[in-house]
Amino acid sequence: MPKYTIGIDFGTLSGRAVLVDTSNGRELASAALDYPHGVMDAALPDGQRLPHDYALQHPQDYLDVLTQTIPQVLAEAGVSKDDVVGIGTDFTACTLIPCKADGTPLCLLPQYQGNRHAYAKLWKHHAAQDKANRLNDIAAERNEPWLARYGGKISSEWAIPKIWEVADEAPELYAQTERFIEASDWIVWQLCGQETRNACAAGYKALWHKGEGYPSADFFKALDPRLETLADEKLSRDILPLGAKAGELTSPMAVRLGLNAGIAVAVGNVDAHVCAPAVGIDGPGKMMAIVGTSTCHMLLGQQEQPVPGICGVVEDGILPGFFGYEAGQSCVGDHFAWFVESCLPAAYRDAAEAEQKNIHAYLREKASALRPGQSGLVALDWWNGNRSVLVDADLSGLMLGMTLQTAPEEIYRALIEATAYGTRMIIDNFTQHGLPVTEFYAAGGIAQKDPMMMQIYADVINRPIKIAGSEQSGALGSAIFGAVAAGRASGGYDSVFEAARAMGKVKDTIYLPNAENALVYDKLYAEYTLLHDYFGRGANDAMKRLKAIRRETGTKR
Amino acid sequence: MPKYTIGIDFGTLSGRAVLVDTSNGRELASAALDYPHGVMDAALPDGQRLPHDYALQHPQDYLDVLTQTIPQVLAEAGVSKDDVVGIGTDFTACTLIPCKADGTPLCLLPQYQGNRHAYAKLWKHHAAQDKANRLNDIAAERNEPWLARYGGKISSEWAIPKIWEVADEAPELYAQTERFIEASDWIVWQLCGQETRNACAAGYKALWHKGEGYPSADFFKALDPRLETLADEKLSRDILPLGAKAGELTSPMAVRLGLNAGIAVAVGNVDAHVCAPAVGIDGPGKMMAIVGTSTCHMLLGQQEQPVPGICGVVEDGILPGFFGYEAGQSCVGDHFAWFVESCLPAAYRDAAEAEQKNIHAYLREKASALRPGQSGLVALDWWNGNRSVLVDADLSGLMLGMTLQTAPEEIYRALIEATAYGTRMIIDNFTQHGLPVTEFYAAGGIAQKDPMMMQIYADVINRPIKIAGSEQSGALGSAIFGAVAAGRASGGYDSVFEAARAMGKVKDTIYLPNAENALVYDKLYAEYTLLHDYFGRGANDAMKRLKAIRRETGTKR
Repeated sequence: MPKYTIGIDFGTLSGRAVLVDTSNGRELASAALDYPHGVMDAALPDGQRLPHDYALQHPQDYLDVLTQTIPQVLAEAGVSKDDVVGIGTDFTACTLIPCKADGTPLCLLPQYQGNRHAYAKLWKHHAAQDKANRLNDIAAERNEPWLARYGGKISSEWAIPKIWEVADEAPELYAQTERFIEASDWIVWQLCGQETRNACAAGYKALWHKGEGYPSADFFKALDPRLETLADEKLSRDILPLGAKAGELTSPMAVRLGLNAGIAVAVGNVDAHVCAPAVGIDGPGKMMAIVGTSTCHMLLGQQEQPVPGICGVVEDGILPGFFGYEAGQSCVGDHFAWFVESCLPAAYRDAAEAEQKNIHAYLREKASALRPGQSGLVALDWWNGNRSVLVDADLSGLMLGMTLQTAPEEIYRALIEATAYGTRMIIDNFTQHGLPVTEFYAAGGIAQKDPMMMQIYADVINRPIKIAGSEQSGALGSAIFGAVAAGRASGGYDSVFEAARAMGKVKDTIYLPNAENALVYDKLYAEYTLLHDYFGRGANDAMKRLKAIRRETGTKR
Repeated sequence: MPKYTIGIDFGTLSGRAVLVDTSNGRELASAALDYPHGVMDAALPDGQRLPHDYALQHPQDYLDVLTQTIPQVLAEAGVSKDDVVGIGTDFTACTLIPCKADGTPLCLLPQYQGNRHAYAKLWKHHAAQDKANRLNDIAAERNEPWLARYGGKISSEWAIPKIWEVADEAPELYAQTERFIEASDWIVWQLCGQETRNACAAGYKALWHKGEGYPSADFFKALDPRLETLADEKLSRDILPLGAKAGELTSPMAVRLGLNAGIAVAVGNVDAHVCAPAVGIDGPGKMMAIVGTSTCHMLLGQQEQPVPGICGVVEDGILPGFFGYEAGQSCVGDHFAWFVESCLPAAYRDAAEAEQKNIHAYLREKASALRPGQSGLVALDWWNGNRSVLVDADLSGLMLGMTLQTAPEEIYRALIEATAYGTRMIIDNFTQHGLPVTEFYAAGGIAQKDPMMMQIYADVINRPIKIAGSEQSGALGSAIFGAVAAGRASGGYDSVFEAARAMGKVKDTIYLPNAENALVYDKLYAEYTLLHDYFGRGANDAMKRLKAIRRETGTKR
């Protein structure tokens, strides 16, 4: 008798549920809901304007996803609720909700609805950059030992800068906030009725460490006296590893979702990290890249060791029992979107229209006719700074080799190649620091939709690339964790490794490196590396000086 | 009683005559003719296809310019032919015509009309690049002393590679060629009936030196034994300084032109160099830049001294009695044309159309709203290699500082600024080598039509920029030399300096540097310089290696 779990993936703009057969990972039905409030970056629901760099969400939207998509997948799959044994979820992170002690988001209380700090701060809320800068300075001055685990720099996207922003700009609201909680943990709380915290979000985003806990109260006090007691009073020191069961579905929620009360609910998870088991990753050496507007790379290690330029290393943060290493490229698909919006000539758009082709398809067709090295171009993929391995948001883009014959598709391809070199740099960096990469898996929109780009990646990194078998790796990964939370006795699994091997999947198509192309790309990568180190490691800080000049001119950017 | 001279400027696509009052340089009338054969780069008149990199012209077109435009300006100005006292001409160079001893171009003889080497090879004929490369290698091996006068490298656009191409590919035609002559000297020959050669074309384009003459017969023999006797048999050692009189208008030509026979004809001149007196330049320190698709810079010196990276230094080559130094930027307006064709997004074209604006005007409007440094971009203006001061055609373009917010007008402005930095580099280079630049004059299409660009140039070089007073500086300069050939006794002048001061003119509008902008540009120029030297002087030869990789991939470029 087949059993099923439901995985729900909460993305930036929408939430998506899949109903999955626990025996083989087959996806029987899926349903999605665009968040009714979307990303609030211009105004609050009451029309109040938001400052620059804001990105808020409304927690009610997350509940709407549950109540709308779960009944839908049940109906579509024609599966009895009696055969659904578990629920897993994953979320963007750090997406942080200020709540009361009972889990009520402050923004749902009438008295706080006009306060922007009462809403969920989405991962890409960047208004706390000054807090992040000061945090980094203070941590460096104090030689905080945990700094090295995060590649030496804390992002403004993470939890502490966002919380500090509340404390500093809305102290009364900060005082009224009894819990600051990741949306990934908040949604689990709504499902099972009790607060839990997951190691992935706590480790990567809130500076928590399994052995050492949070940074010291002294450190928090050095930031701001109001933060001294933050960890004990508004966070939690009780952190669960991925793969754990958070609790059981409450009766009221079961009624709303059309499920049975008491089924297992997995601890929260992060949307990128949850993808690893969805492709069957069960141990070290297998790198997973989620390739989209930006790219997130994950790799498992047997022990914690310092790797410069990564985003973080967290025990149990990807799969239990391993140290999960995360690296990232801050700008991938965003490069190509920029190019199409800002650089693609009218003649190309006209030609694409005349041929009735999507402009990206038209451009890819032209770019894929080029051979490696033919354009004579090489670029540094730093239009949005560099996350790994330089951890420097002040870096900017570079392109070299243009002639009067340089065509748009050559620039487009050079941008794609640059992101591939960036990935190779991350692989080489892990390898040089004792974490060799033996296999490479790709998921995310670009991995699914752009064979040219995946072939370029295979040629540049000179490794086969396996593609996630599901177009919804996040939701599938969550369903896998749901099956682990349910356990073998209920028709799930007792370990995530078993579950990953049974339910995770890759496509039949594997991108194999072309040996001739790989040789040319070796040469081009050597050029990339030379430029990378020259502009990225202090020999010529032109990019930083230009940004400083730009700031001095008083422009708003 | 006012006297007049006629100046005729032979450009790449057309010839243009102006009739000028010798007392004050006032232009009474002008007329132009597009060359009927234009630039032949695809086929000969008989339909025979031409190889890549060819650019030929038909000498008959040059005669058509004389016979059509001169009667027109006379008629339009309502001036009696009795008051026209002289003719001056200028031409593109090196534009080389193979002739018989009587001046008949070989291409006008029926037996040679099907031979592509019988036609005039236009300055931008690039098919002799392999000859230029070998010539440079051989000259360097032999430590030829004249090489330094040309910045260490001879261009494929110049005379010897073009002549060698004939000798090598069409040896019979080479044997039948009795004179290889610059079009600038050939047109004067047609006017006054006798062959003369001008120091400007001979010096800058045919390696001639007033003191040392041509390179040795030994050198020519080392290139190709057939060239050993070239200088004595097919060129001329009798070279006249600019400002000299070549002869007098012949009776048959006077009839065809509607002028009096016997009026003075000035020696030939080159279209860029002839502009110097047209703005009143009469001595050292005053740099003249002709800003168009490429830029040519001219400066006078009291003695010959080595300046690295220039195009050449020629005694009497700009004004008699001075050493004329020429430098150049190989890609200026071409950058912007490339940008508009290859990088300008459809949305901008649509907006320009909606506002009924020319796309360049639309773009300039947006770019001129930016402050210096606001874009955070800096570029190296090497899309077509670098002429001065690096003399390296294998260099290529670079742009640095892009972010996801970078807008098209920022890239456009960065390209403009890059060409301004290139000009400043040339000024600094002259200054460092004993030729300080105290004044800056600009002529050419861009100087006349683009106030934004001229203001950027003034801010970058931190000097006032005076703009040529005539939109036809070449033709006016030629008319000035016509007045000098006529002499004071006939209503002209006995020296070109007098003539330049009386007839040369600049516009009332002077572009004054903005001190605040100049400070920012000092900083940006420091970044440009750092990149210029790093990529241009051997620290990182990425551009050359990328071009080598590109060639290895077997692409046609």
